[in-house]
Amino acid sequence: QSVTLWGRINTSVESQKFGTQDRKIVVQNNSSRLGFKGSEDLGGGLKASFSLEHGLNSDTGAATGGTTFWNRASWVQLEGSFGGVRLGKWFPGSYFATADYVSMHNHDTGTSSDALYATQFYTNNKVSYFTPTVAGFSAELSVAAGENTTTRAEDIAVNYDVGPFHAGLGYEKKGDFTQVAVRGLYEIGPVVIGGYIQRAENSFGAAGKKDWNVWRLSGMYVMGQSEFHLNFGKADQIIADDGAKQLTVGYNYNLSKRTKIYGFWTKVDNQTKGTYFTGAAGQDFSSLAAGIRHNF
Amino acid sequence: QSVTLWGRINTSVESQKFGTQDRKIVVQNNSSRLGFKGSEDLGGGLKASFSLEHGLNSDTGAATGGTTFWNRASWVQLEGSFGGVRLGKWFPGSYFATADYVSMHNHDTGTSSDALYATQFYTNNKVSYFTPTVAGFSAELSVAAGENTTTRAEDIAVNYDVGPFHAGLGYEKKGDFTQVAVRGLYEIGPVVIGGYIQRAENSFGAAGKKDWNVWRLSGMYVMGQSEFHLNFGKADQIIADDGAKQLTVGYNYNLSKRTKIYGFWTKVDNQTKGTYFTGAAGQDFSSLAAGIRHNF
Amino acid sequence: QSVTLWGRINTSVESQKFGTQDRKIVVQNNSSRLGFKGSEDLGGGLKASFSLEHGLNSDTGAATGGTTFWNRASWVQLEGSFGGVRLGKWFPGSYFATADYVSMHNHDTGTSSDALYATQFYTNNKVSYFTPTVAGFSAELSVAAGENTTTRAEDIAVNYDVGPFHAGLGYEKKGDFTQVAVRGLYEIGPVVIGGYIQRAENSFGAAGKKDWNVWRLSGMYVMGQSEFHLNFGKADQIIADDGAKQLTVGYNYNLSKRTKIYGFWTKVDNQTKGTYFTGAAGQDFSSLAAGIRHNF
Repeated sequence: QSVTLWGRINTSVESQKFGTQDRKIVVQNNSSRLGFKGSEDLGGGLKASFSLEHGLNSDTGAATGGTTFWNRASWVQLEGSFGGVRLGKWFPGSYFATADYVSMHNHDTGTSSDALYATQFYTNNKVSYFTPTVAGFSAELSVAAGENTTTRAEDIAVNYDVGPFHAGLGYEKKGDFTQVAVRGLYEIGPVVIGGYIQRAENSFGAAGKKDWNVWRLSGMYVMGQSEFHLNFGKADQIIADDGAKQLTVGYNYNLSKRTKIYGFWTKVDNQTKGTYFTGAAGQDFSSLAAGIRHNF
Repeated sequence: QSVTLWGRINTSVESQKFGTQDRKIVVQNNSSRLGFKGSEDLGGGLKASFSLEHGLNSDTGAATGGTTFWNRASWVQLEGSFGGVRLGKWFPGSYFATADYVSMHNHDTGTSSDALYATQFYTNNKVSYFTPTVAGFSAELSVAAGENTTTRAEDIAVNYDVGPFHAGLGYEKKGDFTQVAVRGLYEIGPVVIGGYIQRAENSFGAAGKKDWNVWRLSGMYVMGQSEFHLNFGKADQIIADDGAKQLTVGYNYNLSKRTKIYGFWTKVDNQTKGTYFTGAAGQDFSSLAAGIRHNF
Repeated sequence: QSVTLWGRINTSVESQKFGTQDRKIVVQNNSSRLGFKGSEDLGGGLKASFSLEHGLNSDTGAATGGTTFWNRASWVQLEGSFGGVRLGKWFPGSYFATADYVSMHNHDTGTSSDALYATQFYTNNKVSYFTPTVAGFSAELSVAAGENTTTRAEDIAVNYDVGPFHAGLGYEKKGDFTQVAVRGLYEIGPVVIGGYIQRAENSFGAAGKKDWNVWRLSGMYVMGQSEFHLNFGKADQIIADDGAKQLTVGYNYNLSKRTKIYGFWTKVDNQTKGTYFTGAAGQDFSSLAAGIRHNF
């Protein structure tokens, strides 16, 4: 068999509150997925590989991407000592190097995922070069073809790992939008501290060009099979009164490497014109959640 | 590999007749499916498991649920000596405990499936508790969250097995609809006799609240690799002249445990205002079928 | 495990030109697919088997068939010394026996696939009989049920293989459309030469019934891991000035049996009213491509 099947079902039961609406009980998907991957040794240090990755709503069985079934990944890659070349669709390296990396409590999924990180998250029609790892550094350089219908996009990710210290840089440009973020993460015994700062810029047409900052700080304390998490982020206002803050407190209990049960409380606080997470100006969001995550 | 692939392709060629329309030749799907499942031993009697199950039209290749790809199941479960807790989507326990259990000739699929059984068949956003089996009894207690958009639903199933006798009870409530059914099944050498009786109730708004009964009786005679089936059901009228009867005569030849070829003749007889199976008042349905069912 | 997973990711980067439009860079899918198949030995020379085959756009992750997920195949089959009987959906045998067979450079996929071959390519609701192979001959006889909504279709394929010589015949009829094609292919050491000639007929309603011819000639020269390809086809005009020519020059480098990298240049030349490949009268198409094909 030259194919490996893998995936994750991550489902929680939550008490959610949107603005002044009635609190409601929700069975919530947290980026559940199913993947097929494989690689072939071609000799001479060459390797071919592929990945197909599907996102699904574990609460209803619906495909997250509708008819874009492989909405998380569909790529083929050739790699050797020179690095790797990849064609197709996958998530931006800039995202994995920054926002995803420090969202430790629940893999940056579900209602407690990072609501503030600025991105166009362009994933289709990509061609990338992956460098080999040299002195702890590795990089991914991507171009997404616009194919004369959408705007061409560029994405750069750099990761650096040395002992307990891990850093990353992400850069993304699509049309009038650009963002750059820097991430650091440090392991001190049972404590892990991480964070990123991001600078984003968008030419909002008539509204005019604006810059804004986003940052996040997150910490984890590990005690046996338990993990205690704290996570705070802030997006500055872009035009006026449209910023937001996000706070999450979480607890994970690892039943095994593959399976955990968890609970968290999360809140997004929008300024009067902020629309983060809820999509409605000034509407806040909070949720109290308990869930199961099972990797297979 | 922590994942098991399994499925069933069940396809028949049928001569179907709807009311007074011309008889037509149809290549017919009978609830074909593809599933991924797995479980992990967590030690201490604990077990995590998951299931993803997709329904497909084997005659055209279309997903039965459209973009709800995993329209049959997508759940994660944690179980121990205390029983099991399951989150996500799957078919109602009340259905498996009753109507499905006695539909022996073709797994309650296709044109000869039970057309009369009353159910809202709610499957999304469920949280359930499964009891351990005690003295032959086991039960499933489910709540489906309405999430402030649909009506909350409840479902209870009880199964009892002792030697050749098998019984079940199903209860379902969604908004103004409730149904309760009791099933029995007895094995006497090569003969198996089963049946259920159901009481359903619906508040039809202006039309007013109504109760009605449904029942079914089914028998199988096994001779070597051959099975002979007979199956009769009746739904009483709800308001007036809207009841129906259903009769199926079937023959299965088991080429192996996994593969059978089969034939059946089935008929749904609607009263003048009955719309069972056909959806059109008073329109009857019949089909003569030959098919292949292959489990993998 | 009674299921085999298999598939192909085939993605290219192309510089494409449609008529007088600006040349554009495109990441292009070339009929990527994912399949599940299996068979069961039933004893006495009998065998049951099934296939589910999904087409995907490797550049975007979209399902090629939308909600018709298994748009390439979903069938179940029973076979023995008498031949095989198959029910469900799959590509026409007439196509594999002719156009597909001689499109050697990239499996008749992507922008260099045969744009001229005349077919209705009907695949749903099929019942087929496959003959055993006798004296090098084998045949597939298919009927696709119209189910009173679409027109019934018939498809016949005959293949003949003896030593280095391979021939095929395809016949297809759907309503007012019929086509018949004959294919030959000869292996002479490192050289392979193949081609087909096709006669198609359509009753275009008011426009009146018309016949037309299509032909293609293709050659391959193999040198170690390298393959050099040349491929030319022509569709005669049907009514007036609506014919086309197609030329492809290709190079494949086989990194292994499963993985190749390749390049090609392809061009479709439409007459003033021809709409082959582009769908726009008189619009030509050309592409310069480099790609990776990985089988798994």
